[in-house]
Amino acid sequence: MAGKIDARLAELGIELPDAAAPAANYVPYALEDNTLYIAGQVPFWNGELLHIGKVGDDYSVEDAQQAARVCGLNIIAQAKAALDGDLDRVRRIVKVGGFVNCVTDFGQHPAIINGASDLFVEVFGDAGRHARFAVGAGSLPMGVAVEVDAIIVVD
Amino acid sequence: MAGKIDARLAELGIELPDAAAPAANYVPYALEDNTLYIAGQVPFWNGELLHIGKVGDDYSVEDAQQAARVCGLNIIAQAKAALDGDLDRVRRIVKVGGFVNCVTDFGQHPAIINGASDLFVEVFGDAGRHARFAVGAGSLPMGVAVEVDAIIVVD
Amino acid sequence: MAGKIDARLAELGIELPDAAAPAANYVPYALEDNTLYIAGQVPFWNGELLHIGKVGDDYSVEDAQQAARVCGLNIIAQAKAALDGDLDRVRRIVKVGGFVNCVTDFGQHPAIINGASDLFVEVFGDAGRHARFAVGAGSLPMGVAVEVDAIIVVD
Repeated sequence: MAGKIDARLAELGIELPDAAAPAANYVPYALEDNTLYIAGQVPFWNGELLHIGKVGDDYSVEDAQQAARVCGLNIIAQAKAALDGDLDRVRRIVKVGGFVNCVTDFGQHPAIINGASDLFVEVFGDAGRHARFAVGAGSLPMGVAVEVDAIIVVD
Repeated sequence: MAGKIDARLAELGIELPDAAAPAANYVPYALEDNTLYIAGQVPFWNGELLHIGKVGDDYSVEDAQQAARVCGLNIIAQAKAALDGDLDRVRRIVKVGGFVNCVTDFGQHPAIINGASDLFVEVFGDAGRHARFAVGAGSLPMGVAVEVDAIIVVD
Repeated sequence: MAGKIDARLAELGIELPDAAAPAANYVPYALEDNTLYIAGQVPFWNGELLHIGKVGDDYSVEDAQQAARVCGLNIIAQAKAALDGDLDRVRRIVKVGGFVNCVTDFGQHPAIINGASDLFVEVFGDAGRHARFAVGAGSLPMGVAVEVDAIIVVD
């Protein structure tokens, strides 16, 4: 039986990627008590790595926003896997960490990480409103443009 | 009625900035159960962005310490807003994340983030003693010198 | 009386460093309720700072993996100190943050931070499996190659 958030995803026409396996010896999420820690997600879509590039050099702000949105979709996909498919158990996304792979004089990190933040509010409403940081990484795994992680309080 | 921490701030002659609105579609803090997540704060003071610069290039360690202190003041201001004005509800600042916008061969990040850490201990005493990381960001939003976030356990 | 994890460490021939004092005005761990926040650990071994270097420049991936392992050993040493010597109280390492000091076109961060992740699983088994991020820092304190922090849920 699809839940309210599943219905909201369908209404928005949002398709989730497969919950990707981690690239190394760790797990994509860890849930203890009612706190769900989601590992840093990169713009991975069903087996393919999208959005490789350094922002401000060979990569635009608009493309990086899209990369952040794909990271956000992967976070939702991992949360769904962690919660046995029931996204209605998401009480609140409390913290988002956003890393942008960019040149050293770049300054529009908030606009880029909005690609993930906007998605969370679109899908979860007020429960998607989170504290966050958005910073420039010197580099990111496999040269991806954006990496985003999250802490979610669940019921 | 002013609380003990308000009295301590007055005694120290410390003025808090207005709790700034976020620069993007997220919230400055998220409080669930007794854990308060404060968004990454930049050196913003009542509408003005202070402390723009890259440490080790055009920006000194001393100025960056001051930037970190202003980030810390904003964290306290956001905590006060989150706790309906009652800073006495701060049980413990448990984690601080410090990002320094600096050149790639810089190494004095701990001294800079002390600008925030020292403030927390000055104001909250032992309740202000926290675990933290202090790292170099390749770049930071709007070119600020420092960004600091925090996790606070509250009563 | 040595616990099960102490026995496991002995069986693996793993020696822990002394739990190092912090390099600045903060504490190496903060424990509230059942969540233990460990400060960012650098490759410090009983008074000596190992593994100084920028990966991809003067420092190899293999050496950086070893640096990450030493950071992980320091995390375990700090956890032991926080838990009055009883590592059996570690219920789950839920989150690891890994920062690699590397050149801007580097991409093998996951392989490096595995130096810490593999250690945690080796020592704690399933309780050592964690969500994590692995990103490139523009620089790190005192020029170390890797910095790792952790959040641990304890009993």
